[in-house]
Amino acid sequence: MLKMNFKMKAEFYDVDSMGVVWHGNYVKFIESARCAFLDAIDFNYLRMKECGFVLPVVKFDIKYIKPIRFNQDFEVEVCLLEFDSFLKFRYELKDGEGSRLSVANSAQVAVWVESKETCFNLPEPLQKALSRAVRAFG
Amino acid sequence: MLKMNFKMKAEFYDVDSMGVVWHGNYVKFIESARCAFLDAIDFNYLRMKECGFVLPVVKFDIKYIKPIRFNQDFEVEVCLLEFDSFLKFRYELKDGEGSRLSVANSAQVAVWVESKETCFNLPEPLQKALSRAVRAFG
Amino acid sequence: MLKMNFKMKAEFYDVDSMGVVWHGNYVKFIESARCAFLDAIDFNYLRMKECGFVLPVVKFDIKYIKPIRFNQDFEVEVCLLEFDSFLKFRYELKDGEGSRLSVANSAQVAVWVESKETCFNLPEPLQKALSRAVRAFG
Amino acid sequence: MLKMNFKMKAEFYDVDSMGVVWHGNYVKFIESARCAFLDAIDFNYLRMKECGFVLPVVKFDIKYIKPIRFNQDFEVEVCLLEFDSFLKFRYELKDGEGSRLSVANSAQVAVWVESKETCFNLPEPLQKALSRAVRAFG
Repeated sequence: MLKMNFKMKAEFYDVDSMGVVWHGNYVKFIESARCAFLDAIDFNYLRMKECGFVLPVVKFDIKYIKPIRFNQDFEVEVCLLEFDSFLKFRYELKDGEGSRLSVANSAQVAVWVESKETCFNLPEPLQKALSRAVRAFG
Repeated sequence: MLKMNFKMKAEFYDVDSMGVVWHGNYVKFIESARCAFLDAIDFNYLRMKECGFVLPVVKFDIKYIKPIRFNQDFEVEVCLLEFDSFLKFRYELKDGEGSRLSVANSAQVAVWVESKETCFNLPEPLQKALSRAVRAFG
Repeated sequence: MLKMNFKMKAEFYDVDSMGVVWHGNYVKFIESARCAFLDAIDFNYLRMKECGFVLPVVKFDIKYIKPIRFNQDFEVEVCLLEFDSFLKFRYELKDGEGSRLSVANSAQVAVWVESKETCFNLPEPLQKALSRAVRAFG
Repeated sequence: MLKMNFKMKAEFYDVDSMGVVWHGNYVKFIESARCAFLDAIDFNYLRMKECGFVLPVVKFDIKYIKPIRFNQDFEVEVCLLEFDSFLKFRYELKDGEGSRLSVANSAQVAVWVESKETCFNLPEPLQKALSRAVRAFG
């Protein structure tokens, strides 16, 4: 399936008193990578809003393998898993040598802004943009 | 002028790799205390929104005197300074013995949500609520 | 198994542009509740550090059921699941009517600070404190 | 005096319920820019720690001029102001057209890790690195 990699760096404010990135901050790195993925396929949150829907996260899980330290460079690989009812991604955080630091998964559903109703299937324009990207780069 | 005190505690996620609360997290403690103050005078952000305005922070300064450590209890004293063009507060963070940990100041202006225009003076309902509170408790 | 409940409130800085608590901020509420649990059984992170170990989170998962809004009061129920190799907790976030907002799970392992080695079993003093609490309140 | 510019982007998690970057998150952008500046002169926080000192922020002030929105690109200009007793920087956040979004100032002092004593003057190796950078690029 379609995969993209994004470079990141651990900032001072990301690090906790054990000298490693605080486990809750991984959610930020992952969201940042997911947004960059959606930017790359030209269907980011702003575009969704124009189409009348938002895409809240409904499930998230993460496994921490190796710590990330202050000023450390790492990559987040975003892998598109599924896009019918849910938009599902898998993430792998890797250090400079390609060794895995963390793996995570997210699931999102579309909700119409006006009616506040959850869509059973992802809205067509989003599905099309994802299909197009899979055909082009996947 | 009107003063109120709010009890807080430093959480694990607030602390940086030097073992003290990260300096940027004081903005959260202070916002939390300011919101509790506005709740107490019965004019919180939700009420403002109903009246059609928001109250963004336009200036903030802080001096750090003593560090705050994990699990430490402290108080934020919120002191109302001014409420004509700007809503101005002064804050003192104090430890259990009353010794000062930090002092800060904020200034906010009112902006009408619909027109996006800044108000030259704080909207009347907010000014009235503040005057009433000053007479009652100040 | 042993359960404890902690009251919390969603702050302005917790809320995202969709007007609900940003999904990553639940990790903070949950950590805050877990620390309060460990305080209550008199074996918090400071005590662990004195014993020479830390307790990093190695796994975390969460399901979001209903959104939490600005200024909303809610409770985090912390339920101790297991404490031999891993310290495992289950969390339920509930609103004022007891309806579930979110459910989550965490797993932690003990790591000796000096040797940086992971313990196969949680250190004895922590296991004893947990057993004692289960007998007393569970 | 010596100035450097760093490109940044506002993430979804940076934005509050008014649809603009939450005012407290500017502290992160500014810290990130300051750390990049110190990296560039080859004297970052890791190097300071090797030299036995840390550099806590003791004063910070900020003025918010224009809001920053989700996904907006902006720059942080870091300008070195002073480096004898205090390390002082001035920051300007600018949008793509160079118009000012925010201005801020920070002051830091050096504290010896072992003795926990504050230095009256910044440690010599840091002063030298800063002088060298000013001569080379200022």
